[in-house]
Amino acid sequence: MIKALVFDAYGTLYDVQSVAAEIEAAFPGHGDFITQVWRLKQLEYTWLRSMMGTYADFWPVTREALVYALDILGMSLEPERLESLVGAYNRLLPYPDSEACLAALGRYRRVVFSNGSPSMLAALIDRSALRPCLEAVISVDAARVFKPDPRAYALVEATLGAAPQDVVFVSSNGFDASGAKAFGFKVVHIERLPAASLRAEIAAATTIDPKTMYKALRVQRETMGFIPDIVISSLAELPAALERMA
Amino acid sequence: MIKALVFDAYGTLYDVQSVAAEIEAAFPGHGDFITQVWRLKQLEYTWLRSMMGTYADFWPVTREALVYALDILGMSLEPERLESLVGAYNRLLPYPDSEACLAALGRYRRVVFSNGSPSMLAALIDRSALRPCLEAVISVDAARVFKPDPRAYALVEATLGAAPQDVVFVSSNGFDASGAKAFGFKVVHIERLPAASLRAEIAAATTIDPKTMYKALRVQRETMGFIPDIVISSLAELPAALERMA
Repeated sequence: MIKALVFDAYGTLYDVQSVAAEIEAAFPGHGDFITQVWRLKQLEYTWLRSMMGTYADFWPVTREALVYALDILGMSLEPERLESLVGAYNRLLPYPDSEACLAALGRYRRVVFSNGSPSMLAALIDRSALRPCLEAVISVDAARVFKPDPRAYALVEATLGAAPQDVVFVSSNGFDASGAKAFGFKVVHIERLPAASLRAEIAAATTIDPKTMYKALRVQRETMGFIPDIVISSLAELPAALERMA
Repeated sequence: MIKALVFDAYGTLYDVQSVAAEIEAAFPGHGDFITQVWRLKQLEYTWLRSMMGTYADFWPVTREALVYALDILGMSLEPERLESLVGAYNRLLPYPDSEACLAALGRYRRVVFSNGSPSMLAALIDRSALRPCLEAVISVDAARVFKPDPRAYALVEATLGAAPQDVVFVSSNGFDASGAKAFGFKVVHIERLPAASLRAEIAAATTIDPKTMYKALRVQRETMGFIPDIVISSLAELPAALERMA
């Protein structure tokens, strides 16, 4: 029995790579490097801060990660420009299939559950056409710990009253799919880049660049166990996958 | 009052990059990529498993991370060869300055505190000349959680009876230096690659390769706060740094 569909936001409904154009405009020639290091450190700092018991919400964490990426290059920004560029995470583009997917699943309760702070998620979702499809937007902020800590995932039941085994959790982030499965959700992993495509990309590369390295680190299935129930390659395949699951 | 010196192992006393030759021999042309992805995922899985409450010791974590790196390339190994290659982490080379540094600090209690499992650390340390310098080798395994969880760092006091403020913690890993500082240790960060050198390396590169990307992600100071008390560029500088500190 599927009682709710829970979608991750960053990387699943919204394309984190869409910050690259803004970064490239601000730092010509460095858009790719900064984009990849920024995202990698952003996630890393959510994990480290959770473990250290030094939670800060996703806005300062995103800022710290951007400062890190710029600092590696010996660059920095005035505070106002820095805040403005951090805001690129509030201007991410939805994937082309996000709206149609959510719209096609009106028979289910649909929510977003994300690392983003409430204000970041409000800014992000209100810019796109996804809001009318969503019953709720749940931020980890209420638990003051990030995914994949089970105290974060527990907010879904606390908000929706749906037991984990009745929830289908949808994520493109391998670590999130693993964490959600370990927690007890049914899990659909959206693997937007098939393993064979990444292998071909690596085989064709003279030097493996930061963007390919990012893909190698972040958008493939994890090998920790906690296997997703279903792996599909786009949100467009989700309605059919749910019918098979039900 | 400095009552004990506590050294991280992987990346601080022992060079994790020293697995690259063994990897390159096993997978010609892929030594660098596998080495970097392996180490990056190894640390990532320590964090994720700690957060998820699904601890496994550092041996299976190291194996999972190697399987991940090979899988990205569409490669795999028979179980026996896989175990053998995971063992490369038990054959890491100490940095050239490790032994002299520990030997020169005989007036202090000296211990290793590491993510490694007890058997991995025994294998690693018994191969090198460091053992006679060490009073104890403390593994996070007793706490069943990895660094930077404070429950891991608490093992130092439980083992040595020295309060955190009387302990000098020495690490080349930015996340570990941050975690140790947040916990309450005095912290010396060994920044083997100065920021200016990495900037020059990036500026000179036509394409930023996986090894440079690794350096950008792992061997620079973090920007989460939790500033180390002292930053030096090699273990050789540690005795003088401790005199200044005392």
